[in-house]
Amino acid sequence: MRIVELPEILDALDEDAALAAVEDGFRRLHRGNVQLAEVAHLNFDNPPGDCHVKGGYMTGDDVFVFKFATSFYRNPERGLSSSNGCMIVVSAKTGEQLAMLKDQGVLTDTRTAMAGALAARAILRQGSKTLGIVGTGIQAKMQGEMIARLLGLDDILVYGRSADKAAALADELGGAAVELAELCARADLIVTTTPSTAPVLTADMVRPGTRIVAVGADTPGKQELETALTARARLIVDSSVQCAHHGEAGWPIRAELTAMDSLVELGALLENSIDFADDDIVIADLTGVAVQDIAIAKTVWERLAN
Amino acid sequence: MRIVELPEILDALDEDAALAAVEDGFRRLHRGNVQLAEVAHLNFDNPPGDCHVKGGYMTGDDVFVFKFATSFYRNPERGLSSSNGCMIVVSAKTGEQLAMLKDQGVLTDTRTAMAGALAARAILRQGSKTLGIVGTGIQAKMQGEMIARLLGLDDILVYGRSADKAAALADELGGAAVELAELCARADLIVTTTPSTAPVLTADMVRPGTRIVAVGADTPGKQELETALTARARLIVDSSVQCAHHGEAGWPIRAELTAMDSLVELGALLENSIDFADDDIVIADLTGVAVQDIAIAKTVWERLAN
Repeated sequence: MRIVELPEILDALDEDAALAAVEDGFRRLHRGNVQLAEVAHLNFDNPPGDCHVKGGYMTGDDVFVFKFATSFYRNPERGLSSSNGCMIVVSAKTGEQLAMLKDQGVLTDTRTAMAGALAARAILRQGSKTLGIVGTGIQAKMQGEMIARLLGLDDILVYGRSADKAAALADELGGAAVELAELCARADLIVTTTPSTAPVLTADMVRPGTRIVAVGADTPGKQELETALTARARLIVDSSVQCAHHGEAGWPIRAELTAMDSLVELGALLENSIDFADDDIVIADLTGVAVQDIAIAKTVWERLAN
Repeated sequence: MRIVELPEILDALDEDAALAAVEDGFRRLHRGNVQLAEVAHLNFDNPPGDCHVKGGYMTGDDVFVFKFATSFYRNPERGLSSSNGCMIVVSAKTGEQLAMLKDQGVLTDTRTAMAGALAARAILRQGSKTLGIVGTGIQAKMQGEMIARLLGLDDILVYGRSADKAAALADELGGAAVELAELCARADLIVTTTPSTAPVLTADMVRPGTRIVAVGADTPGKQELETALTARARLIVDSSVQCAHHGEAGWPIRAELTAMDSLVELGALLENSIDFADDDIVIADLTGVAVQDIAIAKTVWERLAN
């Protein structure tokens, strides 16, 4: 088994190939050609932390993948990263472990940004120019870069609670830091990337026709979009089950404002595009699915092995 | 993270310490001090194979463990072992991966034999002298060695469908190869270690007072003991849920001959010994639980780290 450290992983990561693989993964998930393993999960109290193991197999592939990830929230107090983990690439022909990708979370961040970019492309209105980014963390930066590049949106607005961080990110992305009201008034596409547990975007802030990619809500209790906003939007989800459980879609579903069967999965949308009306508010609610991990680990491994 | 190959694992494996750790694991499982993760599972058709990931945490420990295991049954045709896997030892304080134990299945085989020896010790009649071993594979050898040593049973009988293999194993263990009828007539304790899907031991073969440790049945469909035999025995199980699902205990339970609440878990028996009557037939049905993996990996890691 090959142990692959981050620099070598980054060398082997071809962004176009990985994006195509993640898209292919969503499509195959929709077609029922992906076997996902149960998610294994452990919780820790002292210090607080958790561990989860996700994995799966795209039918017919030469390899399958398990991802092992931990979060220990107090690690930074000790000068350590809160996240640890790796992806293990295994032969689907012999069961032999081929590689351990010690990606330090970078592949997860990258596949998360790629799902955002794919969703954004699938829901964007023609003629869109302005991308608004809410949040200033790693996903704000990565989604900003990837979406701007993929969709050619060159007018970038950034809003963050910290004006300094917003200014720094805007600078990095070649955009401008603005107030949230201005961002909502001008952006054609808004990407929300905060870990908020109270709505950041409210229904009255968002203009008809706005497209939103929401990537912050990934565990129960998180919410970036007011329930009234989500309830009146067309909803795209990466996984109906997950989004109803702990994504933005869960809020209007639990309030019985949205029907479970109105959700359209991203894989279905990629396979069969939808002509949204120009004044539809469309929200892509992304919680992260294992098929993204499988796809990105697989492309890295293919480059390493050849 | 330290990658530890088999020779170094074997050097660090103190059998007494590991046996004590496995016993402690079963006791803590019974006391509710173990958090077991969901078992993640994938199946493969072409070639046939499977993968499972098991893990857990004994509350208060410094480390937790995930085991990753694959079986690809046609590997031997290609000159490869059918089993592959490793155990990953992780800090329960920071989530950092401390070690990958590339044990090639040896730690699993060892912890399986240890559970057999612990169960045998807990159910053995006083004055027992003769150990009967049914089967000639790796568990036949390991259970034979470990039980004989731990319990001082120095009269060893071996039965196998292949007379040659039985003779070879008997030779190795310092015992005698015999017919199954003779083994049943003479053995105080019988260990069954075959992958059979049809009963090997029938009710009329087994004398009152015989103690049996059955380790073969570990997946649905396997059965070494006739249902009528299991139905009339006192049943010890490593896990009620697992044994009712795919162990020997499942057969009389599904036939409504045995009540689920009559099963006694090994951890409970170790915590509170039972005075079995001399003519009770007692069967220990062992399917393998993750706490054994956690325990043995932990003891190896403790020796490696100090």
